[in-house]
Amino acid sequence: MSDAFTLITRAQGSYVRAIDDGPIEDWPEHFTDDAFYKVTTADNHRRGLPAGAIWANNRNMLKDRVSALREANIYEPHVYRHLLGQPAVFEECENSASSETSFLVLRITGDGPTDVFASGRYLDEYVWADGKALLKKRIVVCDSNRTDTLLVLPL
Amino acid sequence: MSDAFTLITRAQGSYVRAIDDGPIEDWPEHFTDDAFYKVTTADNHRRGLPAGAIWANNRNMLKDRVSALREANIYEPHVYRHLLGQPAVFEECENSASSETSFLVLRITGDGPTDVFASGRYLDEYVWADGKALLKKRIVVCDSNRTDTLLVLPL
Amino acid sequence: MSDAFTLITRAQGSYVRAIDDGPIEDWPEHFTDDAFYKVTTADNHRRGLPAGAIWANNRNMLKDRVSALREANIYEPHVYRHLLGQPAVFEECENSASSETSFLVLRITGDGPTDVFASGRYLDEYVWADGKALLKKRIVVCDSNRTDTLLVLPL
Repeated sequence: MSDAFTLITRAQGSYVRAIDDGPIEDWPEHFTDDAFYKVTTADNHRRGLPAGAIWANNRNMLKDRVSALREANIYEPHVYRHLLGQPAVFEECENSASSETSFLVLRITGDGPTDVFASGRYLDEYVWADGKALLKKRIVVCDSNRTDTLLVLPL
Repeated sequence: MSDAFTLITRAQGSYVRAIDDGPIEDWPEHFTDDAFYKVTTADNHRRGLPAGAIWANNRNMLKDRVSALREANIYEPHVYRHLLGQPAVFEECENSASSETSFLVLRITGDGPTDVFASGRYLDEYVWADGKALLKKRIVVCDSNRTDTLLVLPL
Repeated sequence: MSDAFTLITRAQGSYVRAIDDGPIEDWPEHFTDDAFYKVTTADNHRRGLPAGAIWANNRNMLKDRVSALREANIYEPHVYRHLLGQPAVFEECENSASSETSFLVLRITGDGPTDVFASGRYLDEYVWADGKALLKKRIVVCDSNRTDTLLVLPL
């Protein structure tokens, strides 16, 4: 059995691949059935303001979101690229841990430049299931206030 | 013996260092003798088009490339900086594994700004040899179509 | 007991979090009492020039620096975001190891764009203490000569 740090980094490699390279249907599979997920900004998070524009309190809501993206043809693979840092791991228990991880998202425009679209950190709670780390809670805190305009993109 | 995930991330740290900080002669040492290596774009990869501008089907071709870079004085260390994400690991066997890993490359210009030069993902097949992960196959898929102009740079 | 690679990546996740998201007082806790720390540029490092603008040869100097940042109100959390690559690990001993790790620093401006502020590599010597990796030495080598203007920021 790997330790918490390895389980979490492994889960994050898999998570990012689902978002960037698909199939995007794999994205909700990184969460528990009763997972809580939201996207907010550092300003709102600091002030204790409630949910951002993306919000879910179970995995089915994430699946619905994926279906909506598919139907609207909004989701374009290969247009964004996530890079994650190493997690800072806290509160390691036998079957769970919480962690924080920095991320950046690049946006690739057809023939134009590649630029930094968003950055921030994941505030995560993981549980272990079948030797994998699943997200029970992920709060995505974007550094910039600009970022709430990007909300078609899973983070 | 470490697990596949740790062997791969460890190999990637070493790989990136050889490219960015040298000695660049260490770069081919991360491949098996019969390794396959190519650089392509996401567009070409999706359409199943064959080799990109950089292509090799054994390690000696990579060594030749390094020699050519050295002789042409094209290779300038410290001018590019690679950052890799966590690998998504598939098909773990006792002596091998395949994985995908996101990367970005920064370009540092003398007194100008640092910008994102390229991004993409590695599609890798690794084998274990002497407790290390060696690349048996690496397909570098660049996100942007612009990227094939950079081909003096190992990716 | 984890291996050197995992101890180091774990320490780096924790280090980055202290700098970017605070409390910044945790930053010196990643060093040994007698730690050496300096920030320099690739040009100066290559030419063997001595200390850069930030220099310390024990942890108390780092603590003093944190106090100064706090008093001057210069330190603004959430305005920078560090992303680190995988370490290249050398010279693994039972209680220590040295490694090199690439980093990039993003700067987030209020309502403006996020850009790449700095990049470079850490030249590190770690020792293990109580199951953690502590920095006995960190030389931060910035890729760009521009970077020495940023020196209020811990790297």
